[in-house]
Amino acid sequence: MKHLYILSLLAFVCCQVYGQPATKRVVSPEILEDNSVIFRLYAPNASSVKLRGTMSDDYSGLEMKKNSEDVYEVRMGPLKPDMYVYTFNVDGVSTLDPGNNVVVRDGSYIESRLMIPGELTGLYDVNDVPHGTVSAVWYPDKTLGMTRRCMVYTPPGYNKSKESYPVLYLLHGAGGDEEAWVSRGRANYILDNLIAQGKAKPMIVVIPNGNGSATSAPGETPLSLRLRQDRAAMGSPGAMTGEKMPESMVKDLIPFIEANYRVKANRENRALAGLSMGGYQTQKTTNLYPGTFGYIGVMSMGLYAQFGNYSKEEHIAQLKALEKANPKLYWIACGKTDFLYQGVLELIKLYDETGFKHIYRESEGGHTWNNWRLYLSEFAPMLFK
Amino acid sequence: MKHLYILSLLAFVCCQVYGQPATKRVVSPEILEDNSVIFRLYAPNASSVKLRGTMSDDYSGLEMKKNSEDVYEVRMGPLKPDMYVYTFNVDGVSTLDPGNNVVVRDGSYIESRLMIPGELTGLYDVNDVPHGTVSAVWYPDKTLGMTRRCMVYTPPGYNKSKESYPVLYLLHGAGGDEEAWVSRGRANYILDNLIAQGKAKPMIVVIPNGNGSATSAPGETPLSLRLRQDRAAMGSPGAMTGEKMPESMVKDLIPFIEANYRVKANRENRALAGLSMGGYQTQKTTNLYPGTFGYIGVMSMGLYAQFGNYSKEEHIAQLKALEKANPKLYWIACGKTDFLYQGVLELIKLYDETGFKHIYRESEGGHTWNNWRLYLSEFAPMLFK
Repeated sequence: MKHLYILSLLAFVCCQVYGQPATKRVVSPEILEDNSVIFRLYAPNASSVKLRGTMSDDYSGLEMKKNSEDVYEVRMGPLKPDMYVYTFNVDGVSTLDPGNNVVVRDGSYIESRLMIPGELTGLYDVNDVPHGTVSAVWYPDKTLGMTRRCMVYTPPGYNKSKESYPVLYLLHGAGGDEEAWVSRGRANYILDNLIAQGKAKPMIVVIPNGNGSATSAPGETPLSLRLRQDRAAMGSPGAMTGEKMPESMVKDLIPFIEANYRVKANRENRALAGLSMGGYQTQKTTNLYPGTFGYIGVMSMGLYAQFGNYSKEEHIAQLKALEKANPKLYWIACGKTDFLYQGVLELIKLYDETGFKHIYRESEGGHTWNNWRLYLSEFAPMLFK
Repeated sequence: MKHLYILSLLAFVCCQVYGQPATKRVVSPEILEDNSVIFRLYAPNASSVKLRGTMSDDYSGLEMKKNSEDVYEVRMGPLKPDMYVYTFNVDGVSTLDPGNNVVVRDGSYIESRLMIPGELTGLYDVNDVPHGTVSAVWYPDKTLGMTRRCMVYTPPGYNKSKESYPVLYLLHGAGGDEEAWVSRGRANYILDNLIAQGKAKPMIVVIPNGNGSATSAPGETPLSLRLRQDRAAMGSPGAMTGEKMPESMVKDLIPFIEANYRVKANRENRALAGLSMGGYQTQKTTNLYPGTFGYIGVMSMGLYAQFGNYSKEEHIAQLKALEKANPKLYWIACGKTDFLYQGVLELIKLYDETGFKHIYRESEGGHTWNNWRLYLSEFAPMLFK
């Protein structure tokens, strides 16, 4: 009787996993000794299966071949140890890898994750070090007229300590939301590891939702608002050029954090950084509120004035005011093959022409999370010192 | 120039969303006036597309029909307002709905979410009420010899209050992990809503990972452990009958929570409940540690002794000890079509025979999250009164 129960429970669990009784379990992805990777999908009725992922710049996908056991396979690599995301494309429809139960999300990108152990993943991994806490926190936003959700990382020991901490405000890109820097960005583990190594100061990291018309990530959105959003097109430029995000951050988010956490509430202990759209918002916010942030990081984003209603003259006037406020660090990072690379060169050129102090870090690669995780791991150690 | 940039950014975002340039956007799922729902998938090269989901007990799936625009469609319903999850099956491979960016996860079940507004979803929805905070917290577990992750819900106002709170420990089922009660269970929003309505007392809810050999959810597992797990079969009975979970909870988790949160640390303010495997663990823990929990909830789980190495006599002896400790509530809930229903009847029979006080709540339906969300919404109001 006992075994009957266990078996029936397990059968129930297993049969339901992929919603079909006859799925054959295959190992996928399989990482080989030399860091080559074999991807596999059991798909007896499919006529074409492709692999697409951040392991390659080729978005047309890699054709997978069916073996004698109805398993489509492809081998890639050796791959550089790092974190990648991928999907299969089955007869034209994108699917997750049913062999892999780790899924990451950046907005509407919902993909299977592959981590190949090495130096970089050591930085993102859940290592045997003290871990901070990641909290989903709701706060009142008067500027945007709604209650909004942000993610708050408090460093190891925060709960028991009486200390106050500096704060890094960290912004995601277009299409993303407040969960992106955690799910794709591994920001909490990067901070855990840097703090444990003594490379970064213990700090609070606050990740707001950068879409001015949204309250929160899709699954956490009030149903009334969500049903409206379902009908609207995604990625509208409204979010991109949303005029109120800087005001919302400075007048609502920062005061909320400083009233509810033990925070060193001054410019020297306040940083702002963001990637892509978040880099635009970082430039705009620090230009509009020049005395607010002591440390500024712009990742993979060119001249912000190109997106808004600003002339070059206005931009230069704002930069002069920011220069006067004398931020301790203005850091710009971009990859050489980033599609916004030319815009970043224009930004650097303007800053050079106007004598605006900054540091430019140029990396390999493009507009990718591989770069943004790397940039965070380089930026955080420069803060609050 | 400005518009060129915006367009190139948007094009980049849109093209990447489903990893292919030519995906046609369709509205899916579309909820009609009468709560019928149309599901759609653009799949020009597929030869068969089926819909599978918790809207129906039929796991073979509902055949979808291709229209003249290469979109597979099917209409279901009218459906009862509630939360459902579903996937498409494209030529034998399970896929998410690319038209729907809300994905929920319960262990390896990664599925698209559908919410049809109504009384029940009102209970799970992000309503205009004060929201608690959900935190992912790591704690040392000496019993299991690892650092483990749990989710902690602190009620609205916790941060600013000086009060101490009662705690509900809430356990997931087989195959799940510490994220399941949040992702599929909506436990935090259920509590927000019950507290706002004055139906439940403000309480802390702690959701540990119930798999004794795991540290944390798959995406949050240290890579060294994860790579080992990838090679092992999932759903092994080891997790199910793992002997050390009760000890881990009582000797490690509870002391950690009581040392790090403002908690009323006594039996009258401590509850334990769980579903399926978590119902087994709830029975086992409260039987082994009879004076620890004042409130006990067993959801969708029969006689626990059937799974472990306990004779009926041992079980009865444990029950006598538990009876002596006089818990304020022992609540059992099960659906009439649950595949464990007979085992629950045996449990009730044993409790009736031995005169062990309990309340039995029998619902419609089966071994489903629809029931477990409902049970939580009924159980929480009975606590700490």
